[in-house]
Amino acid sequence: MELIDGNTISRSIIAELTAEVVGFTGPPPKVVFVRVGDDPASISYVNKKQTVAGQIGIESELRALSETVSQTELFAVIDALNQDTSVHGILVQAPLPSHIHEIDVFNRVSPLKDVDGFNTVNIGKLCQEDPSGFVACTPAGIIELLKRTGIQTAGKKAVVVGRSQIVGKPVALLLMMKADTGNATVSVCHSRTHALAAEVKTADIVVAAIGRPHFITADMIKEGAVVIDVGINRVEDSTRKSGYRLVGDVDFDQVATKAAHITPVPGGVGPMTVAMLMKNTLKAYRLATHS
Amino acid sequence: MELIDGNTISRSIIAELTAEVVGFTGPPPKVVFVRVGDDPASISYVNKKQTVAGQIGIESELRALSETVSQTELFAVIDALNQDTSVHGILVQAPLPSHIHEIDVFNRVSPLKDVDGFNTVNIGKLCQEDPSGFVACTPAGIIELLKRTGIQTAGKKAVVVGRSQIVGKPVALLLMMKADTGNATVSVCHSRTHALAAEVKTADIVVAAIGRPHFITADMIKEGAVVIDVGINRVEDSTRKSGYRLVGDVDFDQVATKAAHITPVPGGVGPMTVAMLMKNTLKAYRLATHS
Repeated sequence: MELIDGNTISRSIIAELTAEVVGFTGPPPKVVFVRVGDDPASISYVNKKQTVAGQIGIESELRALSETVSQTELFAVIDALNQDTSVHGILVQAPLPSHIHEIDVFNRVSPLKDVDGFNTVNIGKLCQEDPSGFVACTPAGIIELLKRTGIQTAGKKAVVVGRSQIVGKPVALLLMMKADTGNATVSVCHSRTHALAAEVKTADIVVAAIGRPHFITADMIKEGAVVIDVGINRVEDSTRKSGYRLVGDVDFDQVATKAAHITPVPGGVGPMTVAMLMKNTLKAYRLATHS
Repeated sequence: MELIDGNTISRSIIAELTAEVVGFTGPPPKVVFVRVGDDPASISYVNKKQTVAGQIGIESELRALSETVSQTELFAVIDALNQDTSVHGILVQAPLPSHIHEIDVFNRVSPLKDVDGFNTVNIGKLCQEDPSGFVACTPAGIIELLKRTGIQTAGKKAVVVGRSQIVGKPVALLLMMKADTGNATVSVCHSRTHALAAEVKTADIVVAAIGRPHFITADMIKEGAVVIDVGINRVEDSTRKSGYRLVGDVDFDQVATKAAHITPVPGGVGPMTVAMLMKNTLKAYRLATHS
């Protein structure tokens, strides 16, 4: 079994992006984060993203809005950022309060600055295999992990467990795309699937994105499969100061005995998401400065 | 084996739409077809669509443009139709000449009049399960055939053979959607798939959309499967006056001995495509008149 080390791979990508930014002349690439409310996880995610942006030489800014901001006010903030030519990428951190319609907010961001890839137009472009669009960071990160680990996808059977808009469906579309990093036979399983274990067992590549701790067990895995674990679940752990630890959707210890390659949680897909956000930001910068 | 009769089912839909239009007051729903050049198949398709529109009480108009029309001129025609409030649906008949970029043309049509469902925004909405969008007519027709035949999809294994933008991918997205007509476990196979026969053999529902005559043979089919044949292929036939006959992607005679339900070619999916175009036109009409 070989561990797919997302920390190491994401550091390589960050180093490449840093080298690229050194060559830029004129005003630097800039990304703006919009955060609504004070959710501790959102604060921590945005902090992490700002830190990595800074390492690369991407300027970043945080617009922290009150939990009670109206959708109209939030739209006005986004509209101003869409207009601002010094801003190349805009990321509105999810989740948003329930009085705000998340998809409408994501669609308010200019498709050309949509570094999160959640805009309807960018999802459509992914489906149409139009490379001018932005692909959501987690699915893009999964493909990059496979590519940089030297795992061939063409002709392989990939089983994606989970059909979410932000991971399951886009990663399925990427894996079936006519591309060197695609061309897989892709099956999408979910909560309504009969005989899920049997389906997963046919997989050369498993992507677990169902959000249930240790849902994928060793008996579901074909000997020699590649296992990508997207889950980040908190489980109680009284031995930790925090009272919990993070585990994936895969029963790592058991599955690792059968898999040829497997991602850990944490340290697998997670760090890739941040790296791909930075990659998208540089793409947005190039779109803006070359047009 | 029960034949899924697309002619009969599409006639029911057309009758329902006709009854609906009778209740409309004010100017009638209107669809405009834009045809470039004189491809005989395109002429025949548009004629058929205009005939059915007329039966339902949908006004239609044909803009026949020269093969040599420039993209700019074509855009100007579309822009005018987008602006024209008496026009609810716009369909630019594919294929277009090679000097015109098809996706750009489809995207020039207002998403609110995109009754063909080929606009990037509408494909994105399908992926996001946003019911406000337009779904392409052939995949929508396949779902309608299954629904009206009483075939449950939830939890079933569906195998889609073909990954095109206009059939394979959208029908896969529809079948996996959280909906009574979805919730299937969906696998997408294509030219690069290894062990295609074995994958198809796991299917409770097979959708063949690969464009190769008689590609799906009886040995690939599980006893009792539902088989939907999207293929329309010309094969030489010296016994016909035309010199050819139309066959599907499925070896009908042999597969019919194993399938529980199967669509014929012609008379299966084909007539549904036209019916769903009319359904989309009425949806566009309602969007325009209720806004």
